[in-house]
Amino acid sequence: MMYIGVDLGGTGIKAGVVTEQGEILSKGSTPTMKERPYQEVIADIASLCRSVVKDAGLTMEDIGAIGVGVPGVCDPRTGVIPMCTNLGWHGVPFVAELRSHIDLPVIVDNDATVAGFAESIAGVSAGTHSSVFVTLGTGVGGGIIINGRPYSGAHGVGSEIGHMILKMDGELCSCGNRGCFERYASATAIIREGRKAVAEHPESMIMKRCGGNPERINAKTVIDCAKEGDPTAKAVFDEYVRGLALGIINLINAIDPEVIVLGGGVSNAGDFLLDALRETMKPYIFFKTLPYARIELARLGADAGIIGAALLGKQ
Amino acid sequence: MMYIGVDLGGTGIKAGVVTEQGEILSKGSTPTMKERPYQEVIADIASLCRSVVKDAGLTMEDIGAIGVGVPGVCDPRTGVIPMCTNLGWHGVPFVAELRSHIDLPVIVDNDATVAGFAESIAGVSAGTHSSVFVTLGTGVGGGIIINGRPYSGAHGVGSEIGHMILKMDGELCSCGNRGCFERYASATAIIREGRKAVAEHPESMIMKRCGGNPERINAKTVIDCAKEGDPTAKAVFDEYVRGLALGIINLINAIDPEVIVLGGGVSNAGDFLLDALRETMKPYIFFKTLPYARIELARLGADAGIIGAALLGKQ
Repeated sequence: MMYIGVDLGGTGIKAGVVTEQGEILSKGSTPTMKERPYQEVIADIASLCRSVVKDAGLTMEDIGAIGVGVPGVCDPRTGVIPMCTNLGWHGVPFVAELRSHIDLPVIVDNDATVAGFAESIAGVSAGTHSSVFVTLGTGVGGGIIINGRPYSGAHGVGSEIGHMILKMDGELCSCGNRGCFERYASATAIIREGRKAVAEHPESMIMKRCGGNPERINAKTVIDCAKEGDPTAKAVFDEYVRGLALGIINLINAIDPEVIVLGGGVSNAGDFLLDALRETMKPYIFFKTLPYARIELARLGADAGIIGAALLGKQ
Repeated sequence: MMYIGVDLGGTGIKAGVVTEQGEILSKGSTPTMKERPYQEVIADIASLCRSVVKDAGLTMEDIGAIGVGVPGVCDPRTGVIPMCTNLGWHGVPFVAELRSHIDLPVIVDNDATVAGFAESIAGVSAGTHSSVFVTLGTGVGGGIIINGRPYSGAHGVGSEIGHMILKMDGELCSCGNRGCFERYASATAIIREGRKAVAEHPESMIMKRCGGNPERINAKTVIDCAKEGDPTAKAVFDEYVRGLALGIINLINAIDPEVIVLGGGVSNAGDFLLDALRETMKPYIFFKTLPYARIELARLGADAGIIGAALLGKQ
């Protein structure tokens, strides 16, 4: 049996036909155009599903289910999306709507949860029973896998690990609270601190790399300069890693997964990030003599959304 | 079938025979005398088990298993207690040792986890699938129940929610880190802040209640004065509740349980605490229009340890 995985994003929709082992047989994409009524977006998802099935040389009879990763809150039990800020959706009866086009079981879950699930089946955390996927992008997202299954909490509002408060009364967050984890561990945090740092240290390599315009600093600029030994960039990077380390310590102290998987743009820093993070975490570990979660980089990249969504359907 | 529940503490050992529904048929206790070799402590546990079975008018044939709550890290799979600071135990083969006295299945888990499990079966969170039990005592402990079962993490080091970092670079904690949740949400935090407050406000009612000796301030002193409207005590209490609220927000944002159950000494403040906490949490909730965990007070009191341990055995 094959499964369709759909990765619904604010800009584009991707879909693919996936085997039980997590191998992609065909894939395609279409723009989301999220300003439209949700019925039109979902009609396009249905068309894309039909199209990737055809591309794989299959028919709908070969497909067991459709899984969908959504950038918002999902209630996997009712199939309703109570809130998806990214798409401007509130109370969308997603599963019923998609099933009005294609008569197959439809399963929805949060996109970071879905990507974490993909890694736990076909990626770096394959074979583990529990993991937390941490996406380091514009914000910080999370996907929790417990007992080998995506864990979305009792009300579908769990895994919002980016909004764990890490520094009471700290930096103001877009959510209205202060000191959220993502204020310290997102790409946005690196950019913010990079800009502050060049204001104080205009001699920094960062300033050259951004052509003298701090508005052009991105996370990669800072990390590249840190790799090359620029002291200003290194200080920003080290403080970033400390914030990331403390948030991960919180995940370990609460959830104690087998693996913490790092994804998202910042994770492209690779071993430079991983080595620094593992070293920085050590003094903060609560039980210093006992084993704790491995820290790894995600492996599936941009396909994780399709693969994980499809494997949701397999369940 | 009946089950024996053992609540192993640093000072005393309690045990009881418990029905499948969580009703205690008989109970007893004996001092721990933790300075002794662990073999002697475990031999006393075995004697206490035999004694409570006799008191219930039963024989060992009526007993399905023995469950034990331990104030430390447990590996429920191996039956070894890798670390129990409270008893000074390291790598104690608890299950094998107890089974050398009584040939019954033996299951061990962390004491806060066990108490949370008891509440989820026979207490305030009965009937729920997921809950987090938060003990507000000298420190802050936690017990996580997921899918109706105690969740101890992949390495048995989870549920250490008292050591989630809530304020990066905040108050120094006994664990060596700074800003741990329990620095703000334990009875110890109320006492610390109460003492600071009377130094600045010697006119506070707290000062009268402690006979002019700040060393005699305890959490109840401060909470009682806050209830009676003393402004200094109220300020300490409000700030305490804010710390507790933010830590609970973190649990909701990560784990999203059905219920958060408050236990431990500070929870004796009852509705005064509960009402303040529920109100304080509201502005910090991430998804303000969606349902989230109920906050409740534990119901089983001091018997939760025996009941939860026994019900572990039932599994």
